[in-house]
Amino acid sequence: MTIAQAGKALRSRRASSVELTRDCLKQIEKLNPVLNAFITLTAESALARARELDRELAQGIDRGPLHGIPIAHKDLMWTRGLRTTSGSKIFADFVPDRDAPVVKKLDEAGTVMIGKAGLHELAYGITSDNPHFGTIRNPRNPEYSPGGSSGGSGAAVASGMAFIATGTDTGGSIRVPASFCGIAGLKPTYGLVDRRGVQPLGLSLDHVGPLARTVDDVRLALDAIADRGKRKPAPSSIREIRVGLPENFYFDIVAPEVKAAVHDAARRAEKLGARVTPVRVPDIEALNKAGLLTLLAEAAAVHQTDLARRRADFGADVLALLEQGLAVSAVDYVNAQRERKRFLHKFHRLFRGIDCLLTPTTPTSAPRIGQTEIELAGVTYNARMLTTRFMRAFNALGFPALSIPCGASPNGLPIGLQIVGRPFEDDLVLALGSALER
Amino acid sequence: MTIAQAGKALRSRRASSVELTRDCLKQIEKLNPVLNAFITLTAESALARARELDRELAQGIDRGPLHGIPIAHKDLMWTRGLRTTSGSKIFADFVPDRDAPVVKKLDEAGTVMIGKAGLHELAYGITSDNPHFGTIRNPRNPEYSPGGSSGGSGAAVASGMAFIATGTDTGGSIRVPASFCGIAGLKPTYGLVDRRGVQPLGLSLDHVGPLARTVDDVRLALDAIADRGKRKPAPSSIREIRVGLPENFYFDIVAPEVKAAVHDAARRAEKLGARVTPVRVPDIEALNKAGLLTLLAEAAAVHQTDLARRRADFGADVLALLEQGLAVSAVDYVNAQRERKRFLHKFHRLFRGIDCLLTPTTPTSAPRIGQTEIELAGVTYNARMLTTRFMRAFNALGFPALSIPCGASPNGLPIGLQIVGRPFEDDLVLALGSALER
Repeated sequence: MTIAQAGKALRSRRASSVELTRDCLKQIEKLNPVLNAFITLTAESALARARELDRELAQGIDRGPLHGIPIAHKDLMWTRGLRTTSGSKIFADFVPDRDAPVVKKLDEAGTVMIGKAGLHELAYGITSDNPHFGTIRNPRNPEYSPGGSSGGSGAAVASGMAFIATGTDTGGSIRVPASFCGIAGLKPTYGLVDRRGVQPLGLSLDHVGPLARTVDDVRLALDAIADRGKRKPAPSSIREIRVGLPENFYFDIVAPEVKAAVHDAARRAEKLGARVTPVRVPDIEALNKAGLLTLLAEAAAVHQTDLARRRADFGADVLALLEQGLAVSAVDYVNAQRERKRFLHKFHRLFRGIDCLLTPTTPTSAPRIGQTEIELAGVTYNARMLTTRFMRAFNALGFPALSIPCGASPNGLPIGLQIVGRPFEDDLVLALGSALER
Repeated sequence: MTIAQAGKALRSRRASSVELTRDCLKQIEKLNPVLNAFITLTAESALARARELDRELAQGIDRGPLHGIPIAHKDLMWTRGLRTTSGSKIFADFVPDRDAPVVKKLDEAGTVMIGKAGLHELAYGITSDNPHFGTIRNPRNPEYSPGGSSGGSGAAVASGMAFIATGTDTGGSIRVPASFCGIAGLKPTYGLVDRRGVQPLGLSLDHVGPLARTVDDVRLALDAIADRGKRKPAPSSIREIRVGLPENFYFDIVAPEVKAAVHDAARRAEKLGARVTPVRVPDIEALNKAGLLTLLAEAAAVHQTDLARRRADFGADVLALLEQGLAVSAVDYVNAQRERKRFLHKFHRLFRGIDCLLTPTTPTSAPRIGQTEIELAGVTYNARMLTTRFMRAFNALGFPALSIPCGASPNGLPIGLQIVGRPFEDDLVLALGSALER
């Protein structure tokens, strides 16, 4: 059921927000013991809120498309009076005294918060294999990773525990779980969504955005949280969209079925009237490297004090990354920022000839839980580096990037398609994504 | 003679650009052997250019207020076909293949370039005691420092060798020589003047701006080089300007005559109709520290390659700073940027109640050449740290800051008054400076 369908049911009294909420809670009861998508559940307050919203609707008070819709918040979004762990032992007992603006806006839009979704510790990783709150599992097959860091958000949405979940994306943390779990996830343009009250990781790379079952649902969530004045309207027709399909290195390290799925999506875009042209994309490897170095340093700066005081409270993988960050020199960091600026010019030049770019979201479908290496065409890759290969660059650039489901691997797990647009043209990206999704 | 006076003389044929240029060249011939304000002189091409500009004026072609006016460029501004040393052995033979936009704009405005002014090596210091091109001396008293890094620019303008000189300011490099030599110098708002073709030092701190004998002359130079669209117009009357006079720590480490001069300037501003209010200024010591750390890292990044290949070609003081920069950690750099952002908010809050701030430019008048320590009230300070104490913060913030002469020390050396404004309100700062100067 999409949000639009749920909205119709609510407004025709065929359903109530309480019923929608109960359905989600039933799914949680049934599946969460295996999937472990939540750190904190708020079943009682959710039902009370749903009742209130049903009353409002009965009285003719309509908050808009999200009125009465159950959602989950990644557990690094501050929620007033409700602990916000950031998936970390350090914040295990942290109870914020206010809501993050994103939480507040979604609340005012009439959503029903059913709980706080689990995540990779401190949002610093893509497995969501959390040493403090347990392993999160992929609803499509619990032996496989849901991706991360917004793994609980991805699992919750994909398994019908929530219509929408909020996420954050510093190097792929919204798009990896969207790709692995077979749902839609948007990393909006840098600066489009308020980040206050959201645990930071890499200050120049962090983005807040929604995951949902469909692109239209993602758009409804974005409508509630984005800075309205900054968004540029989508073109009136898909025919006006020029789509770039990379002809160079993008496809050299990709599973064959993923490559086929992306090319198939390009053909469908063409049939819908879009103009698809092959393009040569600037060497993202260098940009990824600059982005990674930036993240290492910024994350270490964010957690510097706790690193000194509570070293033993970090998980092994996160601790290793943070300590690596402490060793980065300022000169390398400054040079990485100069590199980002150079690539920004290069990508703006590329986007003169196109309006959006199609790439795989992840070069493969989800790996197994605990799998640290992925083999492709006989070569072994580090799973984290390979998985984020097409993503990190767009955190470094701040361009909007959407992941939508696009076929399946031989093992049945979903494949993700990434659509990247120019800054503040999130709606163009969503328009193409919505057309391709149908 | 001001530029306006020279312009009148030129247009009434009482003088020619050739005569103005010859007068400057005579001053150079007379004083430069002692002052050492120039690295390269362009007497012949200057006279040829002056002749051409005189011909233009005779034909009715008038390029505006700077038509026919002799100027000097700091020797880190790229000049096509003319070596641009940056005061460094490394660039001693560097001949750019194009002009910096600032050079080009001033050329198109009709200025006559008489030479390239000396500077502190790589603009990284405030003494202008250059190990490769010799010591630059203060025209008011050659035993004293002209300040730096734009020391040649300051000395040339103060001694009548040029009407205007260009400068750069990363931590005080325009304002220190303006203060020590008794002329006007503006560090414009960050981003107001094009920095392409100008040897960088600290990429997030570098500003290009003019030094001249009067504030009105500074404004004429700024008119030629600034991005017009960004400048906010000055208020129509001094009566509309709210002046903040710091009541806290600003005056705790200042020579008594400097303190008296600044307070006297505040009283004069009040008499002119400005509203002067005592204000508490955020703790600039912390901001200075963040600015200094930023500079250390960014300068090391800029010169990293030469540091590895040509270590012996750097002067001792610059080499020490660059090596210090290599040792800065990315975490400290990132934290310094966060500190800058915090202070930006604090200063914007301060500037809600005022339109500009009066401070000393330098806490003392010029020290002697070679003097590395300055004593104040029985305490000994590092000369570089003390001198830039009121300046570095405004590089870190990007606010416009003007230095104008404001009285003299018992030894006859000039005192500088700094006027700081909100971003892109350079014209308000210049308006108050011009009124106070009279």
